[in-house]
Amino acid sequence: MGGRPVRLVLAAGTTRTARIDGISAAGADPDLTVHTPSADAEILTYGRIALSPVVPVSPGGCPTPAVISRAVRELVGFETTVVDAGLAKPTGAPTVDLGADPGADVRREAPVPAAEDLLAAARRFGRALPDDRLLLAETIPGGTTTALGVLTALGERERVSSSLPENPMALKREVVAEALDASDLRPGDAAGDPAAAIRAAGDPVLATVAGLALGALDGGAEVVLAGGTQLLAAAALVRHAGADDPLSLATTSFLADDPNAAVRETAADLDVAVAATDPGFDGSDHPGMAAYVRGEAKEGVGAGGALALAEEAGVGGAALRDRIASVYDRLLGGSGPEAGSTATGGAFGGTE
Amino acid sequence: MGGRPVRLVLAAGTTRTARIDGISAAGADPDLTVHTPSADAEILTYGRIALSPVVPVSPGGCPTPAVISRAVRELVGFETTVVDAGLAKPTGAPTVDLGADPGADVRREAPVPAAEDLLAAARRFGRALPDDRLLLAETIPGGTTTALGVLTALGERERVSSSLPENPMALKREVVAEALDASDLRPGDAAGDPAAAIRAAGDPVLATVAGLALGALDGGAEVVLAGGTQLLAAAALVRHAGADDPLSLATTSFLADDPNAAVRETAADLDVAVAATDPGFDGSDHPGMAAYVRGEAKEGVGAGGALALAEEAGVGGAALRDRIASVYDRLLGGSGPEAGSTATGGAFGGTE
Repeated sequence: MGGRPVRLVLAAGTTRTARIDGISAAGADPDLTVHTPSADAEILTYGRIALSPVVPVSPGGCPTPAVISRAVRELVGFETTVVDAGLAKPTGAPTVDLGADPGADVRREAPVPAAEDLLAAARRFGRALPDDRLLLAETIPGGTTTALGVLTALGERERVSSSLPENPMALKREVVAEALDASDLRPGDAAGDPAAAIRAAGDPVLATVAGLALGALDGGAEVVLAGGTQLLAAAALVRHAGADDPLSLATTSFLADDPNAAVRETAADLDVAVAATDPGFDGSDHPGMAAYVRGEAKEGVGAGGALALAEEAGVGGAALRDRIASVYDRLLGGSGPEAGSTATGGAFGGTE
Repeated sequence: MGGRPVRLVLAAGTTRTARIDGISAAGADPDLTVHTPSADAEILTYGRIALSPVVPVSPGGCPTPAVISRAVRELVGFETTVVDAGLAKPTGAPTVDLGADPGADVRREAPVPAAEDLLAAARRFGRALPDDRLLLAETIPGGTTTALGVLTALGERERVSSSLPENPMALKREVVAEALDASDLRPGDAAGDPAAAIRAAGDPVLATVAGLALGALDGGAEVVLAGGTQLLAAAALVRHAGADDPLSLATTSFLADDPNAAVRETAADLDVAVAATDPGFDGSDHPGMAAYVRGEAKEGVGAGGALALAEEAGVGGAALRDRIASVYDRLLGGSGPEAGSTATGGAFGGTE
């Protein structure tokens, strides 16, 4: 990715779609999951939670991938900017306000009624950023279902990943079918009209990431999509907006190796170059790393992009894993700003 | 100030008091001045404006002191966090939302009706920040008048600085007298009640800075007030809230040497240690530095604190002045993100 200055822009938001039973992190309490993007923004920014009630951890014990991105940031020092892409809970992290609201359940008509305005606002902001290279990332529980919704509405390959070891793909397809029905759309009907696809079956994070990418490309910056299938859905939106500039996806090996996700196939469809980084967690008995090897979380909060930056900076795997363990211990070792509130086992972190 | 990790927290807000004729940057168009804090946040964060229409520059050609703070940040690399302390215009900088609204004209009753809630929210956030040392800074046009209001309501020394070479002190006193009248207060009536002083005669930035300081002190962090007489008004609020922890003021020599400001006397009243840094602009013919020597701007956006960090890091005066010139040229040389909108000579930058 070259050695030029880089900024990771995190679009953090919510969709009520995440509250559908079985869609996101089965077993997690949706009343806590809705805090996950707000907490992820704090962890990326400060290396700990600030105003959020819990550190996002899956029922299986997998901490949010924000831990990985933060660890790399502490080693490499890249800049970060969080965009409020429809947060539903307060965050102590500074966020850019582009007017996004939380997304509604995609089974209703027009879950993102202001998709077009949000795309335009994010595009304007993406163009205004000063950087040569932007890494775009996401945190939104339920986001792979809305990604599937957008891919389907655009007529692209209908494959997405999951933060769960077992991907509830049949349920996601059913939800997406209801979403399209509610807007009188058939698969492919929104081809060439990204705002229509988001409006009917997407979420505010997809609108924000796609708009940021379009604006950054307008301004001549290099765009790296740091994530998995949600970022590929954003790439599809960029392509359907008519932009044919080079795009690359920087993801984790966990996501790239997931046969359900079909990352390389979808990326090839969309002319997106794929780079997958393996953080070398195999054989680790650390609870913050072993869960990834078991297939949990996989990606999110720009983890794959951050890992690529670590590799580019020559940070060795051992140093990286040490720092991940240290961020994990800081977050989950009870040394939070409000010790009593740094509960574990709360909301789920991986949002892919 | 020691060599430990530090974060500069900028409270950026507005008060309608700035629209009173002659109060802030005589001659500047108040329709542009209201953008100044939003633009300052962008300059500190990105080194250029993003969504703001103009770079804040005084009628006398003095650029916002955000240029100084940003230049030091580019050399030294400290973290920054912007808190929305009542912005009235959009900003492309990420901001922490503590629920602040723009302040009303202090001549009305209760210009900051939610002073108590804002103090509490800022205190909670200040305590949640992870840093060992916080530099607290401000940007709010008209802020020295509201600082005078708070000092008067608390019964402290009634002296403040000005961003103008000629301080309109008589006008400020008149405005403050009207402010206290409107709330049926006499000077000193709010002693021991910081929320009452802010509510009747202050602004949302003072509430935010005082709350942040109290929270940081609660959490055991070192607090450096990075600014001039507005930061001393915040110190007075902290003292009247009952906190007797050590506090220091890091300011510019321009501000410390201003006899009208009585910085050392007020600081002594409040048991605040003063460190003033001289950036060595004397003899410079650069338009971004010569104006300071003529007595414009003086301080703001944490410039004095940033200069202290530069000194602490061993950055030489020549390197500093080169970088200030380079940030200035980047901002005002027409190379903004939207070339046509990077107008010069717009709103005024110095807010002290």
